[in-house]
Amino acid sequence: MNGNTETPENCVFCKIRRGEIPGEMLHSDDDCFVIRDINPASPTHLLIIPTRHFTYLSGLTDDILPVIGRMYMVAKQMAEREGVSESGYRLIVNQGEQSGQVVPHLHLHLIGGRQLGALG
Amino acid sequence: MNGNTETPENCVFCKIRRGEIPGEMLHSDDDCFVIRDINPASPTHLLIIPTRHFTYLSGLTDDILPVIGRMYMVAKQMAEREGVSESGYRLIVNQGEQSGQVVPHLHLHLIGGRQLGALG
Repeated sequence: MNGNTETPENCVFCKIRRGEIPGEMLHSDDDCFVIRDINPASPTHLLIIPTRHFTYLSGLTDDILPVIGRMYMVAKQMAEREGVSESGYRLIVNQGEQSGQVVPHLHLHLIGGRQLGALG
Repeated sequence: MNGNTETPENCVFCKIRRGEIPGEMLHSDDDCFVIRDINPASPTHLLIIPTRHFTYLSGLTDDILPVIGRMYMVAKQMAEREGVSESGYRLIVNQGEQSGQVVPHLHLHLIGGRQLGALG
């Protein structure tokens, strides 16, 4: 688990953002974009993804912190749009093997629309 | 689920921060502080808590975004200190009833130290 394990060229999220792989783009701005998880864990399961390609928070530097904040603002807005803001939802970042992180490009899961269970 | 449901005066996290309830403080700065979850879901289970008392991201405003970023920087540092940065860990924010949010003061869970299961 050392730094990034894929380049933006062959990263599935970067390919979706560039339109090289088809995918419904629910939101897009300079900092991040939002798609639905193709293997949803709940009725609502979105991925808020930073435009900049990086895999692990272990490389987090001060210049990326505003992007994290913006991702949370977008997550809040998406929760409202999906109708789960009042009922409740969970935001999750998986980091590394024991977490079950699948795609090596940092992403924030937003799951909701049902009663959620254990944290992991 | 409208705004904050507790005041800083009777909030358990605010009481810990003020020293009115005993608790091991693993980190503390102007933006946030870190304690261990008293009911851990995994070998490592920390709570990164903003100093400012608020319950829901639905009230998120631009002035709070830097605090969210800082919480992630502290989470990264705590993961390293706890020895889970390489093995993997999960960051979680629960929002509202269906998520299982227990304390009505926003907090970021950091769980790790074992293979983690489903997102919820």
